[in-house]
Amino acid sequence: MSTAPTHQHAFFDDYSEGAHPDILRRLSETNLNQEIGYGEDRLSARAADLLRNAMAQPNADIHFVTGGTQANLIALAAILKPYESVIAAASGHIAVHEAGAIEATGHRINQVESEDGKVTPQRVQAVVDAHTDEHMVKPRAVYISNVTELGTVYRAAELDALSAVCKANGLLLYLDGARLGSALTSPVGDLDLPGIARRVDLFYIGGTKNGALLGEALVIANPRLREGFRYHVKQRGALLAKGRVVGAQFATLFEDDLFFRLARHANTQAQRLAEGIQARGFGLLAQPQSNLIFPIFPDAVIAGLRRRFAFHTWARVGTDRSAVRLATSWATPAGRVDDFLNHLETLL
Amino acid sequence: MSTAPTHQHAFFDDYSEGAHPDILRRLSETNLNQEIGYGEDRLSARAADLLRNAMAQPNADIHFVTGGTQANLIALAAILKPYESVIAAASGHIAVHEAGAIEATGHRINQVESEDGKVTPQRVQAVVDAHTDEHMVKPRAVYISNVTELGTVYRAAELDALSAVCKANGLLLYLDGARLGSALTSPVGDLDLPGIARRVDLFYIGGTKNGALLGEALVIANPRLREGFRYHVKQRGALLAKGRVVGAQFATLFEDDLFFRLARHANTQAQRLAEGIQARGFGLLAQPQSNLIFPIFPDAVIAGLRRRFAFHTWARVGTDRSAVRLATSWATPAGRVDDFLNHLETLL
Amino acid sequence: MSTAPTHQHAFFDDYSEGAHPDILRRLSETNLNQEIGYGEDRLSARAADLLRNAMAQPNADIHFVTGGTQANLIALAAILKPYESVIAAASGHIAVHEAGAIEATGHRINQVESEDGKVTPQRVQAVVDAHTDEHMVKPRAVYISNVTELGTVYRAAELDALSAVCKANGLLLYLDGARLGSALTSPVGDLDLPGIARRVDLFYIGGTKNGALLGEALVIANPRLREGFRYHVKQRGALLAKGRVVGAQFATLFEDDLFFRLARHANTQAQRLAEGIQARGFGLLAQPQSNLIFPIFPDAVIAGLRRRFAFHTWARVGTDRSAVRLATSWATPAGRVDDFLNHLETLL
Amino acid sequence: MSTAPTHQHAFFDDYSEGAHPDILRRLSETNLNQEIGYGEDRLSARAADLLRNAMAQPNADIHFVTGGTQANLIALAAILKPYESVIAAASGHIAVHEAGAIEATGHRINQVESEDGKVTPQRVQAVVDAHTDEHMVKPRAVYISNVTELGTVYRAAELDALSAVCKANGLLLYLDGARLGSALTSPVGDLDLPGIARRVDLFYIGGTKNGALLGEALVIANPRLREGFRYHVKQRGALLAKGRVVGAQFATLFEDDLFFRLARHANTQAQRLAEGIQARGFGLLAQPQSNLIFPIFPDAVIAGLRRRFAFHTWARVGTDRSAVRLATSWATPAGRVDDFLNHLETLL
Repeated sequence: MSTAPTHQHAFFDDYSEGAHPDILRRLSETNLNQEIGYGEDRLSARAADLLRNAMAQPNADIHFVTGGTQANLIALAAILKPYESVIAAASGHIAVHEAGAIEATGHRINQVESEDGKVTPQRVQAVVDAHTDEHMVKPRAVYISNVTELGTVYRAAELDALSAVCKANGLLLYLDGARLGSALTSPVGDLDLPGIARRVDLFYIGGTKNGALLGEALVIANPRLREGFRYHVKQRGALLAKGRVVGAQFATLFEDDLFFRLARHANTQAQRLAEGIQARGFGLLAQPQSNLIFPIFPDAVIAGLRRRFAFHTWARVGTDRSAVRLATSWATPAGRVDDFLNHLETLL
Repeated sequence: MSTAPTHQHAFFDDYSEGAHPDILRRLSETNLNQEIGYGEDRLSARAADLLRNAMAQPNADIHFVTGGTQANLIALAAILKPYESVIAAASGHIAVHEAGAIEATGHRINQVESEDGKVTPQRVQAVVDAHTDEHMVKPRAVYISNVTELGTVYRAAELDALSAVCKANGLLLYLDGARLGSALTSPVGDLDLPGIARRVDLFYIGGTKNGALLGEALVIANPRLREGFRYHVKQRGALLAKGRVVGAQFATLFEDDLFFRLARHANTQAQRLAEGIQARGFGLLAQPQSNLIFPIFPDAVIAGLRRRFAFHTWARVGTDRSAVRLATSWATPAGRVDDFLNHLETLL
Repeated sequence: MSTAPTHQHAFFDDYSEGAHPDILRRLSETNLNQEIGYGEDRLSARAADLLRNAMAQPNADIHFVTGGTQANLIALAAILKPYESVIAAASGHIAVHEAGAIEATGHRINQVESEDGKVTPQRVQAVVDAHTDEHMVKPRAVYISNVTELGTVYRAAELDALSAVCKANGLLLYLDGARLGSALTSPVGDLDLPGIARRVDLFYIGGTKNGALLGEALVIANPRLREGFRYHVKQRGALLAKGRVVGAQFATLFEDDLFFRLARHANTQAQRLAEGIQARGFGLLAQPQSNLIFPIFPDAVIAGLRRRFAFHTWARVGTDRSAVRLATSWATPAGRVDDFLNHLETLL
Repeated sequence: MSTAPTHQHAFFDDYSEGAHPDILRRLSETNLNQEIGYGEDRLSARAADLLRNAMAQPNADIHFVTGGTQANLIALAAILKPYESVIAAASGHIAVHEAGAIEATGHRINQVESEDGKVTPQRVQAVVDAHTDEHMVKPRAVYISNVTELGTVYRAAELDALSAVCKANGLLLYLDGARLGSALTSPVGDLDLPGIARRVDLFYIGGTKNGALLGEALVIANPRLREGFRYHVKQRGALLAKGRVVGAQFATLFEDDLFFRLARHANTQAQRLAEGIQARGFGLLAQPQSNLIFPIFPDAVIAGLRRRFAFHTWARVGTDRSAVRLATSWATPAGRVDDFLNHLETLL
C-alpha cells in the first residue's frame, strides 16, 4: 500500500471510519453484563444463530475472529496437511498482501494468472494436472475472494463451475469474504448468502469492511472440517477473551439486515460515482460490480483530484493516464460523491 | 478451563465485562473521523506517545495487538532463531493455556518448576547449563508473566536478578503483562512502568483484563529487536485494518492514569475479599498480591458459595478442602465483595 | 554430548565404526546396476519385502530414511494435526537430543518423568487427563524408544498396557527403534519383531547403530496412517535420489538374520562386561538389558579407565563416584572387553 | 517425474548407478577405524580441508548432508527471518520438485519466469521493487542452481551481475550445486570453484549426481551466516551419526581431482550425443552446456528410441514432435552413446 494522505481520506479504502452507530450502541447497552469468555457468551451465540439462519445452514460451525489475514491463515492451516497447497489468483490477498502468512503455517500457494481477479476452473485444473507425484506439493484447496481484489463479483454459474472442478479433483473451496456484503448486494450478482454457503466448504463473512469495528465470521460449512476447530483458533492467537466484542457486532449486523443495507449503500455510491465519471467522458477498467471502481484518468486530472481526495493509483494505462481505485463504504456520504464529481468537472 | 456458570459470573475471571465507559465514549467520539488503517492512525500514535512517556522510553517501539496469546507468539517467534527455545515456568500461560501457540511457530518451551509461578535465576541457569551443544535446543529467551498465573508479583530485586542471569547468558527477557496493571499497583510491588521497561527486552501491557474491550500493547524496549517488527505482526494476522480500535482504548487508559486507577480498584477489592475471608477463619494459599486470590475452603463451604458465585477450583488441599481462585476486576462493585462475605458468613 | 576422545574410542557409542563387511560387499556387488531413483529400486523393494516378512505384516508401508532424528520428525509431523502433541519421557531422544526437531515441525512434546527411561500408562493417562479443552494442546501420540535412552527394554506386557491406554484415549503409539535390534535380542526381552509391529502404529528399525553405514526403516503398521507418506518423506529432505543405498543395506541385514546376529553380539559383549565389572566388586545402576550398561565407579577408577578407554559419564552417584555409560556394538571385539576388565583389575 | 522404465535405464537421469569404485574402496579401507560421530571424524575433517583448499576459502564453514532438498531447506531456513522470502526461477528445483520443503520451513518462494532456467538481475530487481512494505513478504535471498534445471550454465559475468543486484538490495545469494561439477567443467563455462565461492554467500557442492553414493557439501562462504549452523543441520535431521560416510566420499572426490574428471566425462558424453544427433538432422532446444541435453524428435522417432532407451519427455514442440531430456553421468559408457546414435540412425 502506498502512503495514505493525511488531509482527506475519502475514497482511499473501506476501513477508514469506525463502526456503524447501531453497533456502538449495542456494545454500550450490553457493556456491563457479565458474559463467559472465549466466545461462549450469549452475544456470540445470538450472532451465530442469526448467521446460521441467514445462510440456511442450521448446523454450520461459526468462529468469530478479528481480521481477514487471521481468518485466512486459520482456515487454510486447519484444512491442509503439511504437503498440501492452496491455489489462488496471483492477485489474491493471500498471495500479495499477507506478508507470507500462509507460508508461515507451512503451505505453498500455487498462484494462477487472472485478468479479473477471479480463479477459473481451467486454471485450477491446469495446476492439478501439473502436480503429478510426491516430488511436488499436492494441491488440496482453492482460495477465492468475493468481491475479488479487482472489484469483480462471482456469479452463481462461476461458483458452480469452480465447485465442480474442486469436487472432481478432491479440492476444498475456501472463500475470503472480506467484502462479501458488497458481493451479495452487487448489481451484477445473483448469489445470496445461502447460495454461497451451499457452494463452498468454508468461508468468512467480513465485518471490518462493512460496518464493524473489527471482526470476521469464519463459517465451516463442510461438516467434515469442523473437528477441533477451536484449537486452531486458539493456537493462532485468535480466540478473544472477550469474544462478545465481535459477537455483539455480528448480532447487530444480522438483525434487521443491517449488514446488507450497509453493503448496498456502498455499492450504490460506487455506482453513482462510476456513472458520473462516465457521464463526464472517462472510461473504467471494467464495469462497476462492487464498492471498488477503477476509472481511468489522464495524469493531470489525477493530480487535480488528489488535491482534494485520496485514492490508490492502480495501474498505468497507456503513456499519459492511469487507472485509479476508488473505494466507497457504508459510511460514504452521498454528498461526497457529488463533491467528487463536481470537482472532476472543474478539471475538464 | 472448567465450564463456567451461566447465572452469576462474579469472581470467575477478569474479562467478563465489556470496557470501562470512558473507553466506549472515546470510541464513539472518534467513530466517524477518517483515519489511516493498519495502526498508522492518530489514535494509535497518541496512545503510543502516552505509553512511551509513561514508561520513560522515548524510543520504544510499540505495536497494538488484540490478545495475549497473539502478543506472546509474535514476540517470541520474532526474537528466536529456529533452533532457539524459551524458558518458562511450567505453570506459565504459554506452557499451559495457549494450545501450543509457541511450538506452532517452531520453538520449544523449556519448562521449569516453580512453586509461586515465578521463574528464578537458579532455574534459568540450570536450563542453560544443561544445554551444552547443537544436539539440544539453545535457550535464548526467558518468559515471565507479571502478575504470574498464581497471582504473585515480581519485586524489583527479583527482576534485577533475572535480568542479570539473562545478560550473563545471552538471554532475552520477555514479560507477559496480561495483568501488568495489577502488578504495578500491587500492595507488595515496588516496580513502576519505567522500572519494568528498563529491566526487560520486550513486554506487553494488557488492556483486555484491565478495562479495554480488547487489546494489548506490545513494547519492544531493546532497540536491537525492532527491525521488521511490523512484518511479524502482519504475518501472524495481528495488524488490524482499524488499528484505531485498540489505539483509542490505550489512549484513554493512559490519559489521567485510568489504567492504574482501574487496576488499583481490582487489587483493593481482592484485598478486601482476602481480609474478610481471613477474618472469618479461612486461610489463603498465599498472601494476596494482586487481583487473584486463592482462599482455602472446606468442600461444603465451596458448594454453598457456588450457589451464588462463580469461580475456579484451583487445587485440592488435604482430604476435604480445596483452594479456589477468586478474581476481581476493574468492574467488581464493592457491594459484591460484601455480598460474598455475607454469604460466606451464612455458611459457617 | 561431552567431547569425545581422539585416541581410543572403545565404549563411547555404537556408531564409531562403518558398516558390517557384508553390507559393503553388497553395495559393491550391486554398484553399477542401473536402478530407478527415489526408493523405487529393486534393492529397496527387496529389503521392504524381507522386512514385511520378518514382521509378519504383509501390507506394512516401509520408507527408508537416513537417520533417527529424521525418522522421528517425519513420523510425528505426519500423524499430528497442528494443535496435537506427543507424550514422551523427559529423557527421550526427541525431548533432549534432537535440537527441537519436533517443535520445528510445530508440535509440543509433553514430557513425563521416568526413572528407567520408559513411559508408563499411568503417566500417559495423567497427561491426557490434564489436557481438557482447546486452550491446551491435545495429546495425540506417545513416543517411546526401545531400547530406551537408559538402556532398558520394554517387555510385551508393558507394551500391551501402553497400547491399551493409547487405544482407550485415541492416541497413536510410535516407537523409536534406533536400537531395536538390541531390544529384540535382549536377555530380558520377550518381544519379537512381529510382536512390536502388532502393538504400535508406526516405528522405525534402526540400521545405523546395528551394522549399517546409515539408514533406518520407517514402518507404518497402521493402515490409516499411510496416505501421502512419501510426500512427507520428500518434503523433509529424506527421499534419497539413490534410495538403493539404504535399500541394499537393509536387504543385507534381513537376509540370514544378520540384523539379529549383530545385535546379539553387542548384547553379549555388554553382558560379559557387566558380569566382569560386578565380579570385580562394582555395582550397576540397573541390571544390563541391552548394549548399554551403566556401572558405578569411584572417581579414581574412572580416571584410570579413561587413560585407555572412552565412554560417557552418565550421572553423579553419591559424593565420590559416578555411573558411566559403556556402549558395545556389533563391532566390539571380545578381546576389547577382556582388555577393559583386565585394565579395571589393575585399578583396584 | 513420470514413471521410469524397468528394462533399460540409460539416459533417464544421473543417479541411476551407485558410486565411483574409488569411493567404495575408500569406504572399505576406512571401515573399521573408530571415528567420532556427527561429522567430527577425521574423514570429514580431511574432506573439508580439501574443499576449502579447492575453493581457496581457508575459513569456509562446511557441513556434509545427504541430499539436495535437505541442503536447500537447511540453508534457506537458516538465513531467512520468518517474514523473508527467496526469489527463484519458476522452473527451479525448490519451486517445483521439493514437495514444498521451503514453505514447510515457513517461507515463500517468489517465482520469476525464466526462459533458460537462469535468474536474471532484472527479474530480481522487479521482485524487490514490487515488495514495498510490511503487508508483503520481504525478499531476502536469491536461489539459483548451476547447472540449472534446463541444463544451462552461468557464466562469470552473469554471476557477477546477480551478485551485484543482490548486494545492492541486501539480498543473499544461494547456489544449488546438485550438478556443480558439470557446470565447472562445462564447455561454455568460465567459472572455477574459487570463482563460485567468491560470488555467492552459500552454496552446496553436489556429490550424489557426480559419483558419490549420497552426499552434498554445504558451504557457508559468508562468515556472517555461520553462527549456529550445526544446530540447523541437527534440527532438520541431517546430522549423520556416521558423518564419516559422506566425509570419506568427498575426501575421495577432491583428492586427485576425481570430482572434476567425473563431471568432465559426463559433459563429454553429452556433447558427443548432441553432435551425433545434430549430424543426423535433428535440432536441440539449446546448445549443450552440461550433462543434460534437450534434442527435438518427431513422435515416431521418440517411440522408436524408447524401445531401447529411457529418458524424460520434456516439452511439446509443435504438433508432431517433442523435446526430450537426455542425461549422461560419470558412469555413462562411451559405447552407450554410440548405441543410441546407431539406433537413432535406424529410425530415420
